[in-house]
Amino acid sequence: MAAIRIVVTGGTFDKEYNELTGALAFKATHLPEMLRLGRSRVDVSIHTLMMIDSLDMTDADRARIVEACAGAAESQIVVTHGTDTMVETARTLAASFPRDGNKTIVLTGAMVPYAFGSSDGLFNLGSAISFAQVLPPGVYLAMNGRFFQWDHVRKNRETGTFEAV
Amino acid sequence: MAAIRIVVTGGTFDKEYNELTGALAFKATHLPEMLRLGRSRVDVSIHTLMMIDSLDMTDADRARIVEACAGAAESQIVVTHGTDTMVETARTLAASFPRDGNKTIVLTGAMVPYAFGSSDGLFNLGSAISFAQVLPPGVYLAMNGRFFQWDHVRKNRETGTFEAV
Amino acid sequence: MAAIRIVVTGGTFDKEYNELTGALAFKATHLPEMLRLGRSRVDVSIHTLMMIDSLDMTDADRARIVEACAGAAESQIVVTHGTDTMVETARTLAASFPRDGNKTIVLTGAMVPYAFGSSDGLFNLGSAISFAQVLPPGVYLAMNGRFFQWDHVRKNRETGTFEAV
Amino acid sequence: MAAIRIVVTGGTFDKEYNELTGALAFKATHLPEMLRLGRSRVDVSIHTLMMIDSLDMTDADRARIVEACAGAAESQIVVTHGTDTMVETARTLAASFPRDGNKTIVLTGAMVPYAFGSSDGLFNLGSAISFAQVLPPGVYLAMNGRFFQWDHVRKNRETGTFEAV
Repeated sequence: MAAIRIVVTGGTFDKEYNELTGALAFKATHLPEMLRLGRSRVDVSIHTLMMIDSLDMTDADRARIVEACAGAAESQIVVTHGTDTMVETARTLAASFPRDGNKTIVLTGAMVPYAFGSSDGLFNLGSAISFAQVLPPGVYLAMNGRFFQWDHVRKNRETGTFEAV
Repeated sequence: MAAIRIVVTGGTFDKEYNELTGALAFKATHLPEMLRLGRSRVDVSIHTLMMIDSLDMTDADRARIVEACAGAAESQIVVTHGTDTMVETARTLAASFPRDGNKTIVLTGAMVPYAFGSSDGLFNLGSAISFAQVLPPGVYLAMNGRFFQWDHVRKNRETGTFEAV
Repeated sequence: MAAIRIVVTGGTFDKEYNELTGALAFKATHLPEMLRLGRSRVDVSIHTLMMIDSLDMTDADRARIVEACAGAAESQIVVTHGTDTMVETARTLAASFPRDGNKTIVLTGAMVPYAFGSSDGLFNLGSAISFAQVLPPGVYLAMNGRFFQWDHVRKNRETGTFEAV
Repeated sequence: MAAIRIVVTGGTFDKEYNELTGALAFKATHLPEMLRLGRSRVDVSIHTLMMIDSLDMTDADRARIVEACAGAAESQIVVTHGTDTMVETARTLAASFPRDGNKTIVLTGAMVPYAFGSSDGLFNLGSAISFAQVLPPGVYLAMNGRFFQWDHVRKNRETGTFEAV
């Protein structure tokens, strides 16, 4: 079993409710707690790179994500990310990590914050970690129980789901 | 995207607390609710074959599971199962579904019932559904975020986790 | 056991996460579900008067709450309300429902939406319904496991708790 | 605001799922966590007297509960207790704590363990703590959002609810 690097960038996945302000905000990532809940025994190292809403993500932020993936010793990488611009970040990553390369990068996220009762986050994390272990090198999205090649997917904003194109 | 058949056999996964008797018991499977929570868009058909504790599973029960997998039109199958004898059922299945066959069968389960707050069930389901889509034909276990070949795994009863052997 | 009227006005209590917009919003009240979870056998009638953030509550809205309480056949009333202006609405109600009157009105709310995992809502509802059954006529707040006379309470915005003054 | 003594005796309230054995069992009480979740600001002291199923409670155990209540400096006491013999323990307590005495004792419990998703525990705790603050001296049960005099209540085992008799 190879080790997996998890690069945390924020997104709905990690948002919390701030009870003093009544607003959604970021504190620490929930990844360690989620892996504990899932009784995960996968060898992972978690790297919290940024904690931002993916609508606020800039080109400079994406360059840092590419850099974090390039610098990782692991060949299997999961990137947690907001769903709104996940496809765009996947495209940026694909320019550096080709299908005939040596890294499998899987982006995932959630439609509902993990901290709220009805989140898809734990399901998606189980899915992304699994796909990262068996898919060949390349850049993928793992959402809705499926995996998508970075250049054959779009987010359907009416249904809140990802579709193959 | 190929369709997946989910064969439900019970196990901790689907146990519930009966508030009148104070005992753990089976009612209906939680699979549809779990797939809805995970916002799964995988094409699945759920077949509730039995709802039993895997310690109570007989050879006749295992024969019915083999039969259910053989009769499934889908080539990707997830079997939900109690963890105590999951390895034994995997071995029985492997006699009928070889690595050079045409079916990928992934057994999964949970250490804590899905209906209870701290369950690993949703994580494991996301994992099992993902592995079923990409692993080559053969019989596998998906637990603890990992996949195991049926003949290289054992349950460690002290830690409650599965290990490669 | 006398019957209790529950007047719903919205507030954090009933906010939900809209997964398509990523914003907090109101849909239907969670009161029936909460009473079911609490296995409540209190005879209640739920009246959804409005579903608003208490920071948006106007004098006209408060007049409608007074009217709803005055028109209720029940002498015990629980009003669910946002915490930010709960004290102000209590003061308005007190002008119409004096301590030597015939109605016991208890306002309650939540710091975290019921729909999220870590809500105080169920605790507060159990508390408010209980206080409404035994406190003498007058207007009260039930928060933090305590009850407060309407004219001896303030919300501490730094701690997010209510204090006697 | 007077202080409340909470005497913990176990019961369904505090049962947990042991994932290694698959059985329900007691570990530590959930009371502190529940009070934190409820954002309780009531001054309480928690005394874990025993952690047992109320069907296993002996006369000696009940004598210890009486003793714990008698020895408490607080005049308001909440006793957490299994529902099966809650009425019997209330009767025992009533022999020592009469209606013209100086202690208000409220027994409460849960139909579903707090650790499981669908528990009535938090609702009942909010209710019991509230009743303890306002009811006159005597021994009561707080269940289903209601309070009952110890000598006018029975558990209906078919519905799993408490009824006035």
